[in-house]
Amino acid sequence: MENKIYLTDSEMPRQWYNLAADLPNPLNPPLGPDGNPITPDMLAPVFPMNLIEQEMSQERWIDIPDGIQQLLARWRPSPLHRAIHLEKALGTPAKIFYKNESVSPAGSHKPNTAVAQAWYNKEFGIKKITSETGAGQWGSALSYACALIGLECKIYMVRISFDQKPFRKTMMETWGGTCIASPSEFTNAGRDVLAKTPDTPGSLGIAISEAIEDAVSDESGQTRYSLGSVLNHVMLHQTVIGLEAKKQLAKAGIKKVDTVIGCAGGGSNLAGLAFPFVNDKINGDDIEILAVEPASCPTLTRAPFMYDHGDIAKMTPMLPMHSLGHNFIPAPIHAGGLRYHGMAPLVSHAVMEGLISPVSIKQLECYEAALTFARTEGLIIAPETSHAVAQAIRSANEATKEGKERVIVFNLSGHGLMDLNGYAKYLGGELTNYELPQDELEKSIEMIKDQPKATVEK
Amino acid sequence: MENKIYLTDSEMPRQWYNLAADLPNPLNPPLGPDGNPITPDMLAPVFPMNLIEQEMSQERWIDIPDGIQQLLARWRPSPLHRAIHLEKALGTPAKIFYKNESVSPAGSHKPNTAVAQAWYNKEFGIKKITSETGAGQWGSALSYACALIGLECKIYMVRISFDQKPFRKTMMETWGGTCIASPSEFTNAGRDVLAKTPDTPGSLGIAISEAIEDAVSDESGQTRYSLGSVLNHVMLHQTVIGLEAKKQLAKAGIKKVDTVIGCAGGGSNLAGLAFPFVNDKINGDDIEILAVEPASCPTLTRAPFMYDHGDIAKMTPMLPMHSLGHNFIPAPIHAGGLRYHGMAPLVSHAVMEGLISPVSIKQLECYEAALTFARTEGLIIAPETSHAVAQAIRSANEATKEGKERVIVFNLSGHGLMDLNGYAKYLGGELTNYELPQDELEKSIEMIKDQPKATVEK
Repeated sequence: MENKIYLTDSEMPRQWYNLAADLPNPLNPPLGPDGNPITPDMLAPVFPMNLIEQEMSQERWIDIPDGIQQLLARWRPSPLHRAIHLEKALGTPAKIFYKNESVSPAGSHKPNTAVAQAWYNKEFGIKKITSETGAGQWGSALSYACALIGLECKIYMVRISFDQKPFRKTMMETWGGTCIASPSEFTNAGRDVLAKTPDTPGSLGIAISEAIEDAVSDESGQTRYSLGSVLNHVMLHQTVIGLEAKKQLAKAGIKKVDTVIGCAGGGSNLAGLAFPFVNDKINGDDIEILAVEPASCPTLTRAPFMYDHGDIAKMTPMLPMHSLGHNFIPAPIHAGGLRYHGMAPLVSHAVMEGLISPVSIKQLECYEAALTFARTEGLIIAPETSHAVAQAIRSANEATKEGKERVIVFNLSGHGLMDLNGYAKYLGGELTNYELPQDELEKSIEMIKDQPKATVEK
Repeated sequence: MENKIYLTDSEMPRQWYNLAADLPNPLNPPLGPDGNPITPDMLAPVFPMNLIEQEMSQERWIDIPDGIQQLLARWRPSPLHRAIHLEKALGTPAKIFYKNESVSPAGSHKPNTAVAQAWYNKEFGIKKITSETGAGQWGSALSYACALIGLECKIYMVRISFDQKPFRKTMMETWGGTCIASPSEFTNAGRDVLAKTPDTPGSLGIAISEAIEDAVSDESGQTRYSLGSVLNHVMLHQTVIGLEAKKQLAKAGIKKVDTVIGCAGGGSNLAGLAFPFVNDKINGDDIEILAVEPASCPTLTRAPFMYDHGDIAKMTPMLPMHSLGHNFIPAPIHAGGLRYHGMAPLVSHAVMEGLISPVSIKQLECYEAALTFARTEGLIIAPETSHAVAQAIRSANEATKEGKERVIVFNLSGHGLMDLNGYAKYLGGELTNYELPQDELEKSIEMIKDQPKATVEK
C-alpha cells in the first residue's frame, strides 16, 4: 500500500468553501468604533475592495481565479500521508493521516492565503503590501507571494523576534521584501512608543498599528495592509487544504473520517483543513473536529465569546470571537504562532455552535509528540504543529483502548527547521509546562468586560 | 501546461545504474598503504561486506532491495520542475528543468544513500554507524536514516561548524543521533590533537579519523563507518535521481536533453543526476554534462588526476581522483559541501574520458543566481546548489545568444533554510569572490607529487 496520496494539478479544487454560508446561526458582524456594524467603505483604506467583498460574502462556493490557481500550483496539491510508522509505534488500530502543508517554499500553510491576497491586491491596482509578523512565518509567506507576483512588501517584525530570529529577516529579504524591527522610526505609532520606551521588545499590537498606519498613510492610495489569519477571507483561502484532503482520503479508500485535528492560534490552518468537514457535520455526519491550543493561551477552552479588538492598540474593528482580552500577554512558549489573544470569528462561532470542540495541551507533551513523530515519520515539525500531533496521539490511544478502528486526520501545518531552538531547549531539559492561572485569566478578561457581547442562539 | 512532473511510487526505478560497467577504460583500483590494490577483506573492519561488494561491483544494473525502496518512498520520487518563471525572467528560448532533491526530510539528496547504507548495515547485523560531518548536511541525513531503521548513530562534527551551526546538532538529536564536536575526548586521534592544540577548530580530516577509529575499535564488531560521498557505492545510490528525471522528462515530452548540470564537491549529487545521461553519451548521444565547482576549490578544473588520500590523516586508502592535495585548506566560502580537496573517482575518471566537462564559478555570481532563482521560482536553495543554478543561467544565456532552443536540466540538490547566514552576508554586501591563486595551488599539489599517478588511456 502506498502511504502517501498525491493529486494532479487538474484535481486541485477550483472553488473555495465558505463556511459562513452554512452556519446554523448567522455570524455576528464586526463592529466599528461607534458600536455599529462596519460597512465595506470603512475598510477600503486598509484592504482592496475585492477582498472586502470576499470578507463579507455569504456565497457557499467562491471561484478560485486562474491566476491564483497557477500560483497555488507552484507547490500544491500538497501530499496526504498515512502515518503508518507512527501507528506502528503506538500499536494502535487507528488509521492516522496527515496533510503535509510544510512542503510550501515558505514552509507552512500561510502561502495559501498570501498568494491569494497578493493576487487580489495586484488585480485592484495596488503596488505595495504592508503587514506585521511575530515569529516570522507570515512575513516570510507574504514576501514569497509578493516576489512571485511583483509587489513591494514591507513587514514590521516584533523587535524581540527580529533580534532573536535574524534568519527570518534574511528569508524575507531573499524574496525581495523589506523587514523592519517594530517599533520603528517610520510611523507615528512607532515613534511614539520609542519616545516613551526606547528599549521596548515590541509587540504584535504595535507592529499591527505600524503596518496599518504605513498602508493608510500612502497618499498615492496604492498601498494596502494584509492579515495572515483571523479574518473570514483568510479562512476561505485555506479551505483548499481540506478540499484536497477529502479527495485524497477518497482515493485512499476511506469512506468515513472520525476525527479531524488542527492546532489553533488565529485559526487559519485548523479552518483550512476542518471547514469542509464541518460542512459534512452540519449535513449530519458524525465527525469529531478538534481545535488544539496551548494550555498557556487557552482562548477557545477558557475565554469568553464576545466582541474584542484584534490588536492592543484597538486599530482593528471589534470582532465576535473568543478572546483572552486584547491586552493579554501569553507566556513565552515556543509555539509563537499560537500565542494570540483572540481567535477567528468563524472558528469561534463554530465552537459556539458545537461544530468544533476545543482542547488544550501543555508544552512538554507537544514536544514529546514532535520527537516521536520525527523518529517514526521522519519529519521535524513546527512547534505549533506539535499540538495537533499530540492530540492525534491521544486520539489514537483512545482508539487502542476501545479496540476500535478510527480514522484520524490532522494538519501538518509547517516544518520546524526555522524553530530548532525550541527543540534544542526541549532536548536539553530546559523547557517547562505553562498553564494560564485562573486569576490571571480573570484579570485579563475583566479589562474587556464592558465591551459588547456576541451571541449565538443554541 | 503543468510545470511540475511527478511520478507515482510504482514508477520509481527498481535498479541503480553503475557507471563503472560502462566506462571506456576501467577504473584505477584503490591502493592500500603498501601501494598495492586493496582487497575486500582490508575494508571489512570499516564497512559491511555487502557494501564493499557493491563498491567493487562491475554490474551495470543493481537491484534496489524492497526494504530500501520503501525507505526511499518516504519522500521519493522527487518532483521535476520546469523553471518557466526563471526562463521568462531571462528571456531565453531554453527550456530549463530542475530535479528537486530538497524535498527530502533532511533537505537534500544525501538521504538517498544514507537510507541505503543504513539498511545494508542493519542487514549485515550492524548496530551502530559512525560518520563525520562538516557543515552538517550529511550528519543530518544519516541520523534521519538511522532513526527510520533503528540504528545507533554517532556523528563527529568539525568543531568550528559545531559551534557556528548549533541547530545541525539539534536536527541530528531530534532524530535520535549523537553529535559530538571533533576533536573529542572519545578517541585516541581526538585526544592527541587536543593535547597538542586544545583550541583547534577541528577539520574534516580529524573528524574522519575519529569516526573510523570509533567504528573499528568497537570490540563487539557491531559498529561500522559510513561515508556520504566520493565512494562508488554512494554514487550508485544517488542514480535514482537521474533515472527518475529521465522518466519525467519523457513524460514532459522532451525527446532530447542538451545540457545536464550539477554542482560538485565530493561528486554525489552530480553523479546522481548525470550518470544515467553519461550512459547515453557513451552510447553516442550528443549531451553536454557539466560539473560546477567553486573557483576557490577548483578540483576538477585545475588539479591533477592522481592517487591521493581522502583525508588529512591518511586513514583512507589512496583513491584515483582529481585532488588539490589532502592537506589543502579551502577558502571559507559558504558552500561548505563543495570545500573538499578530492573528487569521486567515478566523476574524476569520467572527466578524464571527456564524458563530463568541469566548470568553476566564483561565489558572488552564485549568490546572485540564487537570489534570481528565489525571486522567480520561489525556492531558497543551498549555497552548493547555487553553483548549478549559476551555470544553468549561463547556459540559458548562451542559448539566447544563439537563438536556439536548448533543454537544460540541473540538480536542485538542497534547500538553503539551514544556510541563511550566507544569504544574510551576501545581502549585506559582506561576501567577496575567492579564486585559488596559482602559487597556492602549485604548493598544495607539490606535497603529493610523489604519490602514484592514476592513468586513463585516451
